[in-house]
Amino acid sequence: MNDTGTTADGAREDRAAQTAAQRLQTRRTRREVLRGGAAAAAGVAAVGLAGCARPVPGAAAVAAPTATQPAHAAAATPAAAAAHASASGSGPDETTWQEMDRMHEAGIKAFPAETKGLGGQPLAPTMDGDVKVFALACGRVDWEVEPGKTLEALAYNGQVPGPEIRVTEGDTVRLVVTNELTESTAVHMHGVMLPNAMDGVPFITQPPIRPGETFTYEFVARNPGSHMYHAHHNSAKQVTRGLLGPFIIEPKDRAQDPAYDRDYTLILNDSAHGFTINGKGFPATQPLTAKLGQKVRIRYMNEGVMIHPMHLHGMPQLVFAKDGWNLPQPWRCDTLNVAPGERWDAIVDCTEPGVWAFHCHILTHAESEHGMFGMVTALVVEA
Amino acid sequence: MNDTGTTADGAREDRAAQTAAQRLQTRRTRREVLRGGAAAAAGVAAVGLAGCARPVPGAAAVAAPTATQPAHAAAATPAAAAAHASASGSGPDETTWQEMDRMHEAGIKAFPAETKGLGGQPLAPTMDGDVKVFALACGRVDWEVEPGKTLEALAYNGQVPGPEIRVTEGDTVRLVVTNELTESTAVHMHGVMLPNAMDGVPFITQPPIRPGETFTYEFVARNPGSHMYHAHHNSAKQVTRGLLGPFIIEPKDRAQDPAYDRDYTLILNDSAHGFTINGKGFPATQPLTAKLGQKVRIRYMNEGVMIHPMHLHGMPQLVFAKDGWNLPQPWRCDTLNVAPGERWDAIVDCTEPGVWAFHCHILTHAESEHGMFGMVTALVVEA
Amino acid sequence: MNDTGTTADGAREDRAAQTAAQRLQTRRTRREVLRGGAAAAAGVAAVGLAGCARPVPGAAAVAAPTATQPAHAAAATPAAAAAHASASGSGPDETTWQEMDRMHEAGIKAFPAETKGLGGQPLAPTMDGDVKVFALACGRVDWEVEPGKTLEALAYNGQVPGPEIRVTEGDTVRLVVTNELTESTAVHMHGVMLPNAMDGVPFITQPPIRPGETFTYEFVARNPGSHMYHAHHNSAKQVTRGLLGPFIIEPKDRAQDPAYDRDYTLILNDSAHGFTINGKGFPATQPLTAKLGQKVRIRYMNEGVMIHPMHLHGMPQLVFAKDGWNLPQPWRCDTLNVAPGERWDAIVDCTEPGVWAFHCHILTHAESEHGMFGMVTALVVEA
Repeated sequence: MNDTGTTADGAREDRAAQTAAQRLQTRRTRREVLRGGAAAAAGVAAVGLAGCARPVPGAAAVAAPTATQPAHAAAATPAAAAAHASASGSGPDETTWQEMDRMHEAGIKAFPAETKGLGGQPLAPTMDGDVKVFALACGRVDWEVEPGKTLEALAYNGQVPGPEIRVTEGDTVRLVVTNELTESTAVHMHGVMLPNAMDGVPFITQPPIRPGETFTYEFVARNPGSHMYHAHHNSAKQVTRGLLGPFIIEPKDRAQDPAYDRDYTLILNDSAHGFTINGKGFPATQPLTAKLGQKVRIRYMNEGVMIHPMHLHGMPQLVFAKDGWNLPQPWRCDTLNVAPGERWDAIVDCTEPGVWAFHCHILTHAESEHGMFGMVTALVVEA
Repeated sequence: MNDTGTTADGAREDRAAQTAAQRLQTRRTRREVLRGGAAAAAGVAAVGLAGCARPVPGAAAVAAPTATQPAHAAAATPAAAAAHASASGSGPDETTWQEMDRMHEAGIKAFPAETKGLGGQPLAPTMDGDVKVFALACGRVDWEVEPGKTLEALAYNGQVPGPEIRVTEGDTVRLVVTNELTESTAVHMHGVMLPNAMDGVPFITQPPIRPGETFTYEFVARNPGSHMYHAHHNSAKQVTRGLLGPFIIEPKDRAQDPAYDRDYTLILNDSAHGFTINGKGFPATQPLTAKLGQKVRIRYMNEGVMIHPMHLHGMPQLVFAKDGWNLPQPWRCDTLNVAPGERWDAIVDCTEPGVWAFHCHILTHAESEHGMFGMVTALVVEA
Repeated sequence: MNDTGTTADGAREDRAAQTAAQRLQTRRTRREVLRGGAAAAAGVAAVGLAGCARPVPGAAAVAAPTATQPAHAAAATPAAAAAHASASGSGPDETTWQEMDRMHEAGIKAFPAETKGLGGQPLAPTMDGDVKVFALACGRVDWEVEPGKTLEALAYNGQVPGPEIRVTEGDTVRLVVTNELTESTAVHMHGVMLPNAMDGVPFITQPPIRPGETFTYEFVARNPGSHMYHAHHNSAKQVTRGLLGPFIIEPKDRAQDPAYDRDYTLILNDSAHGFTINGKGFPATQPLTAKLGQKVRIRYMNEGVMIHPMHLHGMPQLVFAKDGWNLPQPWRCDTLNVAPGERWDAIVDCTEPGVWAFHCHILTHAESEHGMFGMVTALVVEA
């Protein structure tokens, strides 16, 4: 082979795969190391940013701990940009390929980046006799979407997505919803079969829940599957800003589900907070992990206003349910198109070790000249 | 329960469902009542509208009968807006949550709002021996999309969508198309198998039908299913402005279809006239109705340029045909993604009484700060 | 029949179909004839173009051979536009229906228009023992998307799409990729199962291939099907500009595939180069051809950032594979929605003779007031 760069052969493959998995485990340490050179790295990235509205995930992640102001603000200062430009020898509007590579690398090295807040955490019910009671408070919060990018959000219990409600088919469920917003709201259990009065559509099935009020939803969980709950009032604003969460009904007979070892929910969103998976943009998204040979269940839920064809590298996805209803026959794919309001369930048989990229294949939702961002995560299969 | 607002429990559920259905039946009456307070209601809504291009369905519906000019025009007058602002104590750019709720309520109370014109009406053929002859005239009309919002449309026989052509497999069909437009046109039977010369593509299968000309299409209806007819000349303009209609071929052997009691066609469109179902935007869309226990067939047809994932509340949809071809096995969903040019057929088993919201789940196609609009309707299941 | 224009009946149908197919065969000749009247024809089209950014495929095709500058440039000259306007008697902003028809006709008559360069050409491997070695060089080229519209592209071996790599399940495959770009790159085999180190994601599975470097990918082709290869670095730019190609793995047991006589790959793209099929916009797209009774296999691949519901006139498509994986049961359609990153395989049983339009049904991707453009081609079934 006549390579001037890197070569690879079968012997290196297993090693490379292990290295990738190990790399993720040692990420924290490497991030510390990186911070030693943060000034230079952030400076280079900031040059590429001058005059550009798009945040640079990696640059922000690296710069945040040491800078007295966010990297974006620094880059927006013409003097600072000029200084960097002078140091690197290129004008403020140019991005050299070396800078581009460093930004791409910084983003990936920062993954999974720490941010404040984690959505979709399990919500333990209290019991009122046989009734499982879940309390949800709707309020305004600041939500850190990616390192250094904190935006206004509307949230259930301070989380985006709201906490995971998980019950079993046949359970009687009560949701006590308190509105601490400055506007009315209502909660629709999207996909859940329930009596009409519990459907959460203001002026059709109930009055709106006005600021300061509480409304109680109560019903028997009848149809198992991956469902959602979200606002159904001023919803184009309220849902895209965060009033959404997973509502999972486990089947009474677990044999209705295929076998799986790990259970992940990926809620997609795409407007007020940019492109997010479970309320975070890359590199603040969380990886999925599994051991070699395990089966991972993925529950896709789209709460945005655009389609997101989710592409997993390395292994096919066996799609077995649509909107919580089992398909008559599962089918395989590597890119699963998820439209707004849809849920799809898939099983990944983790036969291939390594760190596998996993992202929306609308490339403008996942990568820019400054590196990967938004709807990107990874499936880590540990050998 | 520690509610400060409304409470609900099992005992209230049946009552609430009945109330919702009754409400729809008594809508006309309530609208009359509302009109008594139209000045105040419209005024409040108009404040929220000042400087805003988006029409307010509810406000317009309420205001139209009493105002000498449309509510939009009134709101666009700075003096009028200032007067309303003064009366309500808020600036012309602010929408308080009370105003927002009133606008949401007004929209829903107006549903189904009366507008001039109804598309997709059955077109009775004349017989020429064994041939079913349908006459279609293409012309320019004013089309009331929602109360007070009348737009230029191109229409077959003055209807948007054009009249429903419904024949039986094996029928010989003749379409006599007269062009009363100021530009050429041609008619493509989208999904219908026919001889190439009848395919309706100018300069490929026929000359364009020029202004004043008539062209005759004749063929045997071979493949049953939910099809469409539409312009295939300057189509990005002609179709989005209304030159489209349903072309339904019933199977000779009715056993090919699943059983159903009601048969609805929902044609989706999304550009020149805003977001519409069968040529109308909410609250001027028509509800689907059924009695408890009945089965409703829905024929989705997308004539727009965007996807529309149609979400029915309360009950799953059993999807059984794509583009008129029966699926090898039907599958269930609650949100059915319909792409441009696609048709999907589904059955809803109306097991749940009540008024169930039914809308595109791209929320920006269905709701704004001013309430629901566009691609929203309801399935009313009467107990 | 009371027609003032054209009539049609059963007797004419077969003749019309033959004519359409013959027409395509004699296209070259007719184009020559047209060129005799090119000045007038181009002039009329140019009037419609004045002040309009959209290129006119037909006008450009006709004008290119005779004009010393592209038709667009001529039309953009106010004096030239005024002269044409004066000649035709309409203002420079008006398009009469006659002009519109002429532009539509010119586009179709130019089809299939000659342009420089053809993508997706088979790439013959060299053998290194049992290893099939494919060499790919990434470089910048000028790419003629449609007649007279040449744009900067990034290309593998100078082709957009890159050359077709076609191997058989079980083959050991080596790709030697040389980067002749001015920025780094990497190649991801989209859909192909391979060891993680060969997955082509910079900083996750390999270092980026920097300008001037070579990287070698080597793996055993395990999962048969219609796959792709494309850049996975700065991909929102690199892929949309042309760094993409088909990667087809034939099954070892050909009985896994349905029977077919012709095999076409349609790669869809939609951003940097406009709306294209296999790197070309109509009328420079290539038609699919088959003899009556033959079966055509179509491999759809979406490398763009938008959905494309591909509508074939005349005959249904039997969809049998998704992302290279056979479906448990094939299903029929006439409009197949292809999302970014997806591949779909379908069989068309060519039972209907004639020239059948075949296009994306997002009408704004396929037709403007100036005629068909972009994602339009035809299936020609020869009797």
